[in-house]
Amino acid sequence: MERKFDEELKELSGMLMKMGSLAQTMIHKSIKALADRDRSLLKDVYTLEESVNVMHVEIDDFCLKLLALRQPQAGDLRMVTAAIKINTDLERLGDQAVNIAQRTESLLERPAIKPLVDIPRESTIAQKMVNDSLDAFIKKDVKLAEDVLTRDDTIDDINNQVFRELLTYMMSDHTTIPIAFDLIFVSKNLERIADHATNIAEDVIFMVIGKDIRHHLAIK
Amino acid sequence: MERKFDEELKELSGMLMKMGSLAQTMIHKSIKALADRDRSLLKDVYTLEESVNVMHVEIDDFCLKLLALRQPQAGDLRMVTAAIKINTDLERLGDQAVNIAQRTESLLERPAIKPLVDIPRESTIAQKMVNDSLDAFIKKDVKLAEDVLTRDDTIDDINNQVFRELLTYMMSDHTTIPIAFDLIFVSKNLERIADHATNIAEDVIFMVIGKDIRHHLAIK
Repeated sequence: MERKFDEELKELSGMLMKMGSLAQTMIHKSIKALADRDRSLLKDVYTLEESVNVMHVEIDDFCLKLLALRQPQAGDLRMVTAAIKINTDLERLGDQAVNIAQRTESLLERPAIKPLVDIPRESTIAQKMVNDSLDAFIKKDVKLAEDVLTRDDTIDDINNQVFRELLTYMMSDHTTIPIAFDLIFVSKNLERIADHATNIAEDVIFMVIGKDIRHHLAIK
Repeated sequence: MERKFDEELKELSGMLMKMGSLAQTMIHKSIKALADRDRSLLKDVYTLEESVNVMHVEIDDFCLKLLALRQPQAGDLRMVTAAIKINTDLERLGDQAVNIAQRTESLLERPAIKPLVDIPRESTIAQKMVNDSLDAFIKKDVKLAEDVLTRDDTIDDINNQVFRELLTYMMSDHTTIPIAFDLIFVSKNLERIADHATNIAEDVIFMVIGKDIRHHLAIK
């Protein structure tokens, strides 16, 4: 049974990685559709969401079965509960990509008010955070997970910069308000994507070292 | 041990209810501060956040201990995993209240552009959703949980209405843009609070009947 359980934990990791990869593709395509003004990429985002939702339910189900049948202890138990949480974050990543896709549909109906620079940059950083947090999970790499946490401030800075710049546009020409609004919400969606990567990184750290670093509190 | 475990599950419920009550107070005070233009209420929001964060770590820790020591099965197992997820949602509710408090600080530095009607109404509905989702958890009341799910559309409608109305203000007088923005984000925060109540309601339904209704997928 021991070896069977090891295989099942590997299967669980594989499922999370597959779901993570789908969610990352959704984010990538939604932002590329916006940056390249290419509506054709959005269809894939909606199709992939269905797959992500199916995996969300499957992974939760699988975790519950592992808890019931294998009654894992210590590190294995922390891995299964981390998987339950990471699963939720991955599903929400998909939701954020769908939100970006919907904003993009609205944005592509109107002229561009400026070339996009900060949003693609924010997206690149956020996507790297997601990728590295999942990489940290697979490799049980605490250092990489900690590194992901340090990048959240950069995202906040870009997000504020996007807001300030678009505010200037809105102030000087009120016809840009609806467009600026959609862009600000896209930037907010990217901020939330980075938040989910941060959640995953925190779960990885707890999974590996058994210590909760959230809220900077030491576990008794 | 059986009776001891029953007591522990009750203790777990009690911890979640206490944390839920703190988060609800945070939401209530942040919105009341905004509606009454009373900055003095905001201090409590920040103080309570610390308690919510402490409970977040404690409840996760307690759930992990129950899984390791009691190796629960079936309904009990679903209750502990539901608690892990609800715990996350409650912590995020606190985060949303803090976001509202911060927007309120910025709003109270400027004159009101209009009497607030929709946002307090949205807040009342969102708070009731949170309250009822937790009530459904304690009473294992699937009907009440399902009822919570139906209210999400009302929140979305109000949120859209807030946006459209404030857009009109911004278009006609661009000096209102920063104020309108903060209000739109408060309304968004309330929408996310309702989303968390929906998550909790879904977890309650799964906990009680062992069936996953998310994404309208039947579990095999």
